Amino acid sequence: MKNYKITIAYDGTRYKGWQLLGDNEATIQGKLTNVLSSIAGHEVEIIGSGRTDAGVHAKGQVANFHIEDSFTGKELLLRMNAFLPEDIAILDIAEVAERFHARYQATEKTYRYRIHTSKIPNVFERKYVYTYTDRTLDIGCMQQAADLLLGTHDFASFCGNKKMKKSTVRTISQIKIEALGNEIQIDYTGNGFLQNMVRILTGTLIEIGDGRRAPEDIVRILESKDRKEAGYTVPAQGLVLMKVSYGKMDGIQ
Amino acid sequence: MKNYKITIAYDGTRYKGWQLLGDNEATIQGKLTNVLSSIAGHEVEIIGSGRTDAGVHAKGQVANFHIEDSFTGKELLLRMNAFLPEDIAILDIAEVAERFHARYQATEKTYRYRIHTSKIPNVFERKYVYTYTDRTLDIGCMQQAADLLLGTHDFASFCGNKKMKKSTVRTISQIKIEALGNEIQIDYTGNGFLQNMVRILTGTLIEIGDGRRAPEDIVRILESKDRKEAGYTVPAQGLVLMKVSYGKMDGIQ
Repeated sequence: MKNYKITIAYDGTRYKGWQLLGDNEATIQGKLTNVLSSIAGHEVEIIGSGRTDAGVHAKGQVANFHIEDSFTGKELLLRMNAFLPEDIAILDIAEVAERFHARYQATEKTYRYRIHTSKIPNVFERKYVYTYTDRTLDIGCMQQAADLLLGTHDFASFCGNKKMKKSTVRTISQIKIEALGNEIQIDYTGNGFLQNMVRILTGTLIEIGDGRRAPEDIVRILESKDRKEAGYTVPAQGLVLMKVSYGKMDGIQ
Repeated sequence: MKNYKITIAYDGTRYKGWQLLGDNEATIQGKLTNVLSSIAGHEVEIIGSGRTDAGVHAKGQVANFHIEDSFTGKELLLRMNAFLPEDIAILDIAEVAERFHARYQATEKTYRYRIHTSKIPNVFERKYVYTYTDRTLDIGCMQQAADLLLGTHDFASFCGNKKMKKSTVRTISQIKIEALGNEIQIDYTGNGFLQNMVRILTGTLIEIGDGRRAPEDIVRILESKDRKEAGYTVPAQGLVLMKVSYGKMDGIQ
């Protein structure tokens, strides 16, 4: 058996997210499992770096799987891309050490959230941005608030899962906010993100950017550990998983 | 009555092209006519710079229309964008002289054709590129052939309309071929293009780029005035109308 690490891009629009459900057809993991098992001729288990919600996209999701070594990596890459639907693509494949595990060994992830801020729609990117035109967003205030989120905190207030029993402590190493014409892009890098966390963080930053809240509110929201204190959950369609890092394990052979 | 010039972007995927048909719903011009007539409260005639085929996109189509002056341009822009479907957007509006006519006065158009050349699909641009991976394309040969197309010629060999009775003479002022990673973009600028002309030119350049034909074949193809001598018609989805110019009439008030 060989262990392969793959990098995956997908347009999440028509999927119920990453995670396998009863109906394989409706998830990215399900599509990959079906295609890979049929290529391999045996059941293949796909281990993703983590879930993405329904409607969320990816340009750099990572997964690994063990497979009988009847194919080279390049053959697998071409076969998978030939059989996958056109909204899922394998960008890269590499044989990795037996012990490589896409979820356990992920050290950092980067998500991008795209906000379209003009009443003139972006026709070609419409499925990959969230349009917010109610008020003008003050990037300076948003960045000031974002800086208060950096470091290690209990992000319980920013967790969409009410029944979360595990630790809600996470570390955010960078939040970069950039205005590009009619679009604001927010890049979040951290060691892990709770369910809906990036979308609740973004909703809260928007409420700060449009003046409904002050940047300093972040401190109080974090301390409250209460989801109701944070801002709204922005729609999934503006979110893209950009990159998953593996520290020393990156590119391991 | 005021005369307005509008710049329009559209994702042509689900439309039967620009031109009004019996069923207004299926064309861009039809959608615009319905929305604008309902805003104005009277029948509004939309004059486009020219047709685009079914499935062709636009980032800079131009049209004009006459309307009772109960609205400012800005109001019209916002109302149209609010009522148009999300795959059509008005990018700009300007009041122009009574005599401005989007078709008669167009002096130049630029079309872009996008060829995706990798077996790894571009998930997010998949509806706006044509994937060609049969053989490697030699950009140098393609540019050499493209240079032979420049100037004023009878482009009958590159006309998809067999019943064309009007002149098939056109002038191409520039063909720019650029390789960008896994994509080749070909920009065509000229005083006008025949039906399917850009798509037949592109199919011919591909057949030259992959070695099936020599660059010098262009001379013979032009001389033959026979559609059968030229290359295949590439699919509509890779084509975008980028810009329509009006020479001295550009931005006229």
